[in-house]
Amino acid sequence: MKRNMRVGAILKTLMDKPGQIFTLNYFAEQLDAAKSSISEDIVILKNILAELKLGRIETITGASGGVVIKPFISDDNKKKLIEDTVAELMDSDRLIPGGFLYYADILYNPHRVKGFGELIAQEFSNYDIDYVMTVETKGIPLALMTADYLNTPLVVARKGNRVSEGATISINYVSGTTGKLQTMYCAKKSIKARSKVLIVDDFLKGGGTIRGMMDLVREFDSEVVGTAVFMENISQKKKMIDGYYSILKMDVVEGRIIIHSEIE
Amino acid sequence: MKRNMRVGAILKTLMDKPGQIFTLNYFAEQLDAAKSSISEDIVILKNILAELKLGRIETITGASGGVVIKPFISDDNKKKLIEDTVAELMDSDRLIPGGFLYYADILYNPHRVKGFGELIAQEFSNYDIDYVMTVETKGIPLALMTADYLNTPLVVARKGNRVSEGATISINYVSGTTGKLQTMYCAKKSIKARSKVLIVDDFLKGGGTIRGMMDLVREFDSEVVGTAVFMENISQKKKMIDGYYSILKMDVVEGRIIIHSEIE
Repeated sequence: MKRNMRVGAILKTLMDKPGQIFTLNYFAEQLDAAKSSISEDIVILKNILAELKLGRIETITGASGGVVIKPFISDDNKKKLIEDTVAELMDSDRLIPGGFLYYADILYNPHRVKGFGELIAQEFSNYDIDYVMTVETKGIPLALMTADYLNTPLVVARKGNRVSEGATISINYVSGTTGKLQTMYCAKKSIKARSKVLIVDDFLKGGGTIRGMMDLVREFDSEVVGTAVFMENISQKKKMIDGYYSILKMDVVEGRIIIHSEIE
Repeated sequence: MKRNMRVGAILKTLMDKPGQIFTLNYFAEQLDAAKSSISEDIVILKNILAELKLGRIETITGASGGVVIKPFISDDNKKKLIEDTVAELMDSDRLIPGGFLYYADILYNPHRVKGFGELIAQEFSNYDIDYVMTVETKGIPLALMTADYLNTPLVVARKGNRVSEGATISINYVSGTTGKLQTMYCAKKSIKARSKVLIVDDFLKGGGTIRGMMDLVREFDSEVVGTAVFMENISQKKKMIDGYYSILKMDVVEGRIIIHSEIE
């Protein structure tokens, strides 16, 4: 088998399961090649992606070592992703009575939300993360794509209790958007004790919903290691949480919505 | 730039945006190569994926032509995906009082649900599809991954009306699981008239929820071109819909849950 054939096969396999470590032996068997050839192939592949700023492949040494594709989005692509999104969101057709902004189509565009998921995964790629958690509904695609790049399961908290989920743990929280006391549920089976959780959500206003997820994680004897949101409303100064990562900042100035990003 | 470098770069670009057509000129510019070299690279890449049964690349001729990666899952991988999932689901710990089965973790496992999304996308890859639609909550990851491979937006119908979504269209439906009359909402902005929609959901019992989505699509002056579900309860013989594609069949025999698949 030719080198470019092996390089293609290895890249396809790594990209199908980002964040998953594949041993050199795995590729040697699959591609019927010597481990030394595979090792050279991987160096070539690493250089291709690095040189063209297309991705990042890492080699992990040791007994459970191997090769893995890590989340990577070049500065140029990051800039383009954010600029394109801001330009689309500033369209006045998106204003909804009550000071809301329609942005579901952005988060429901698979290729686009994959970009944002990779951005969040890259930001948290040095953390030890067991689960990515969100609460239904609009943040699910973003949280799923983040979890895909980090190779962790997704956990979805629900706003109503479902008979089909079995035993649940619930907490009460005050929604920043509606100001109402609400209940959030999570299946007992969904998080193992002593886990590390990354919270991902679509929107942050007062932080009540995210605070709720933090409380929920604690009820599972687990720990929140980070919080990331797609958009933050900065006109609401008082937040119930701090230390979060937000991609877009939304402000309301004289009744007009302004969106920007501080990500470089 | 060497051939294996270009082959790697082209594959990475195509895989990041499955279903999206890239022109040869795009690669010629990006990789600073002659169109004839790119053309040869693509033939090589096509053969690599075909020979190793790793994927399917298509060349589209004509003015809006180019190259695209299509959904593809080999027979061996399909078999393994389904067998692994059935084995996991048959675990008696998954039984929930009321005859329900806990399967959220399967659909919330990103790499796994990507496999099922690719399977559905492959099944419908010859259809002309403008949107993939689901209803919150558990089917969202599967529908999103399907939409990713088909390169279409995702539409998520909701079970409650949200002030932040703007004008909505709603329909009433009878849930097969609870037997209750419910209302389903969809933002008016989310589907353009005269569109073709693929419905994807996690579970099918009586078909009431999917029937509801079909009614909703009709209210948008659009057409349902197919329906796919992750799991179907075949112990409920009477369905309100027909002609759907289901990956797993669940049966209740003498109080025990049996799962199988008819996909070869």
